[in-house]
Amino acid sequence: MATDQPSQESTPDTYDQFEERVRRIANVSNAAGVLQWDQEVVMPEAGTPARAQQLSTLSSLGHELLTADETGDLLDELEDAELDDEQAAVVREVRRRYDRETSVPQELVAEISETTANAHPKWKQAKEADDFEAFAPVLEDLVELKREYANHIDPDADPYEVLFSDYEPYIDLETAERVLERLRDELVALIEAVDESDAELTTDAFAGEFDDDEQEALARDALDSLGYDWDRGRLDTAPHPFSTGTQFDARVTTRFEEDDLLGSITSTIHEFGHANYTLGLPDDGYATPLGEARDLSVHESQSRLWENHVGRSRAFWEHFLPIARERVPELEDVSPEDAYEAANQVYDDNLIRTEADELTYHLHIVIRFEIERDLISGDLAVEDVPETWNDKYEEYLGVRPETDAESCLQDIHWSHGSFGYFPTYSLGSVLAAQLYAAAEDELGSFDDDVREGDFEELNGWLRENVHQHGKQYTTQELIERATGEALTADPFLEYVESKYGDLYGIEGY
Amino acid sequence: MATDQPSQESTPDTYDQFEERVRRIANVSNAAGVLQWDQEVVMPEAGTPARAQQLSTLSSLGHELLTADETGDLLDELEDAELDDEQAAVVREVRRRYDRETSVPQELVAEISETTANAHPKWKQAKEADDFEAFAPVLEDLVELKREYANHIDPDADPYEVLFSDYEPYIDLETAERVLERLRDELVALIEAVDESDAELTTDAFAGEFDDDEQEALARDALDSLGYDWDRGRLDTAPHPFSTGTQFDARVTTRFEEDDLLGSITSTIHEFGHANYTLGLPDDGYATPLGEARDLSVHESQSRLWENHVGRSRAFWEHFLPIARERVPELEDVSPEDAYEAANQVYDDNLIRTEADELTYHLHIVIRFEIERDLISGDLAVEDVPETWNDKYEEYLGVRPETDAESCLQDIHWSHGSFGYFPTYSLGSVLAAQLYAAAEDELGSFDDDVREGDFEELNGWLRENVHQHGKQYTTQELIERATGEALTADPFLEYVESKYGDLYGIEGY
Repeated sequence: MATDQPSQESTPDTYDQFEERVRRIANVSNAAGVLQWDQEVVMPEAGTPARAQQLSTLSSLGHELLTADETGDLLDELEDAELDDEQAAVVREVRRRYDRETSVPQELVAEISETTANAHPKWKQAKEADDFEAFAPVLEDLVELKREYANHIDPDADPYEVLFSDYEPYIDLETAERVLERLRDELVALIEAVDESDAELTTDAFAGEFDDDEQEALARDALDSLGYDWDRGRLDTAPHPFSTGTQFDARVTTRFEEDDLLGSITSTIHEFGHANYTLGLPDDGYATPLGEARDLSVHESQSRLWENHVGRSRAFWEHFLPIARERVPELEDVSPEDAYEAANQVYDDNLIRTEADELTYHLHIVIRFEIERDLISGDLAVEDVPETWNDKYEEYLGVRPETDAESCLQDIHWSHGSFGYFPTYSLGSVLAAQLYAAAEDELGSFDDDVREGDFEELNGWLRENVHQHGKQYTTQELIERATGEALTADPFLEYVESKYGDLYGIEGY
Repeated sequence: MATDQPSQESTPDTYDQFEERVRRIANVSNAAGVLQWDQEVVMPEAGTPARAQQLSTLSSLGHELLTADETGDLLDELEDAELDDEQAAVVREVRRRYDRETSVPQELVAEISETTANAHPKWKQAKEADDFEAFAPVLEDLVELKREYANHIDPDADPYEVLFSDYEPYIDLETAERVLERLRDELVALIEAVDESDAELTTDAFAGEFDDDEQEALARDALDSLGYDWDRGRLDTAPHPFSTGTQFDARVTTRFEEDDLLGSITSTIHEFGHANYTLGLPDDGYATPLGEARDLSVHESQSRLWENHVGRSRAFWEHFLPIARERVPELEDVSPEDAYEAANQVYDDNLIRTEADELTYHLHIVIRFEIERDLISGDLAVEDVPETWNDKYEEYLGVRPETDAESCLQDIHWSHGSFGYFPTYSLGSVLAAQLYAAAEDELGSFDDDVREGDFEELNGWLRENVHQHGKQYTTQELIERATGEALTADPFLEYVESKYGDLYGIEGY
């Protein structure tokens, strides 16, 4: 690699070489994405051993391409080159990944990978046996290994902060903490008020049993309503719904449970929000950071905006219920208001995060965040997790879990070594509210549009202010450009206080 | 790479390194196979640009891994090492691919790839416009480029022989030519006799229109009957049916045309034969040549054995017709004999290869073989292809095409630059008959088994004699071990002469 040429001359060529490398890495990763979709959705059961080898090969090749000396040399050359803003953004994003991946020794990566592969079945067994102690030793190993991992990336930083930035590189932990504390302080009181309310919401609007074909037809109706582009997507079922793909092909999965028609609709709309973000990324940025989604919180903001601000609104059910009635005759006597109330019940005695409503959900997250932060810092010992967990549930939600299975063993994340992931769920909700409020500030209330099933203006705003930018801006920059201010919990709190104050007839909200 | 150590000491380690490299290359290629299946079967229409980049990236990475100096060094070190038979076979196969891929300059590979990418739409347009002259210049370029390509691989060999060996590395061209000449000489006479026969076969046993759901259910019945392992496979539809995958996951595709129920069954059974071969490869050879299928002719022998020797037999229809009647009430009055006759009609005035019966099919192939061989040698000019084509159709099949679209523009192969591919289709049929005869010689007629829907003994013989060996033996070795003799057209000719002599009441057969 020639590094002694003046950067003015070498730049165009160097940048092209660099971009070609970046595209290769992205294409390997996108190929792996197709293999993962296939594995979850269509692969026959016995395909696992071969698929594991294929994915592991692609993962190693991607890692080797990224961390190769050639990548480092090109990054160094581009350091002083004159680049336009878009090129500079690509270099910033790749530099960050390069620095992180080259700073962790391969032996440690392999050890973490082996330990998590082993931790997953241990966690599953422990959960089934309702026995935290069976999982505790492997959790201790993972905490220790991830601390070590963080230390390699930045020995001077708080290790939890380093782990958090794996998932959310451009929102600093201090901001995240401030937001989560705000949610805790405000929501505990609001949930207590809901709990004490004697309002009687309709809860049985979607009661009954519905077969898969009927639910699938209705899920397709919902996607049609929202304007999902079937030429660039598809709907399938998967045990754990997800969305994956690129701006050319962003697929949605959902699941159908006989007795949970509402759940399949809200879950489909949630995944639509993810896919719709992906489809809004610019085509010409494909396989570079300019055509890739900003990180987890922004992605989650898109799914929650559509699921909650649109899909759980009164206006949406005024639009969608007539369509649903055509498809599902049992809904004949349900009114839009019934559907709205059923879609917004608060389950204040629920212990399970994935079954939580949009209000209590965030206390589930706050609890996990507080615990994992203290685990990584060493302020909390692994053996003390169950008691701390249960104390916090009692304090924040007024319920105390009675088994390990329904308390600290309920989530898969820690068995993957994913410490620092949970906060991004709540940050996503907070950002969804902030973006929705900013869009309405600019364009007026979307209620009439939603009531008419016209999502073009809303989606146009999201395309223009969020989707089309890919990773060109950091997350803070993106949020400030779109909303005029830094990430803030205010719009979310206003939204839930107004909505649930109204629904539950709570004074003072 | 240390090459100065004694091979006795370095071998185990060297071989392990080599095998790891081989597995990586195979896993990249298998990942590409999943992406191709996805593209043909489930990918939304707009996904093409991204998919093209993903596949091109995987193809380059695979090529670079194979042709890297490290691969060459490892192959050199293993040259004098003490290897067991299986290891030696792996080295032989990889050495062959390495030598070929490193001998062709990348610029030529790129030029061929660009020219074929451009040739494909040109061919399509020319076919639609029924205008060979519009395709002739690009065909000339391709002939020239492939001659050059062959010259890089072996400047001393007949270039057509080199091209043929891309598809069929271990059957020499002389053998292939002898077999094809035999087919031509014997089949022309047999087809004339069929043509002159006044036997009246049932042709309308499967007449009628059948919807996709009914045809799919019947295709699944056929796969159930044959013992397809659904835990390691699946059935989907594709415009051009194919089979793909590994021993852990070998998928079948088929197509349903409203007015061609028989075609969907025979096509499904054909693809089953391919998938069944793949599923019989040893699990522990996965991602090495020991777990990969021998080449095109052997693969085609498996599809044709099941399609023709089983699926077009009287015994099969005695077994399958009652099942089909359950699924398709319109077949109520069809007898097994009717079905057998309908499945074995000879279309002596057909001009289209893909619509040919198992008798005339091989004259379609012989014609293409004779023409492409003379094109590559320079004995035939591109401009003379249509006339030569039509003369040969008249001479061998007694029909003369009247348009370019239904003569030399009908097949896609030459637009891909695939000269030397066609013969493998006929070699597959010939080998199918040879294997089936050898299996019956050893185990007695399978007719009773087939009549009872019991395919275990037949499949057991194929597993033992063909499938489980992967690429351990060369094709000639495999054929000789399985049948006791070299590739020969005798069993195929005996089979068709007996079958069609009987069906059409032809004396002397």
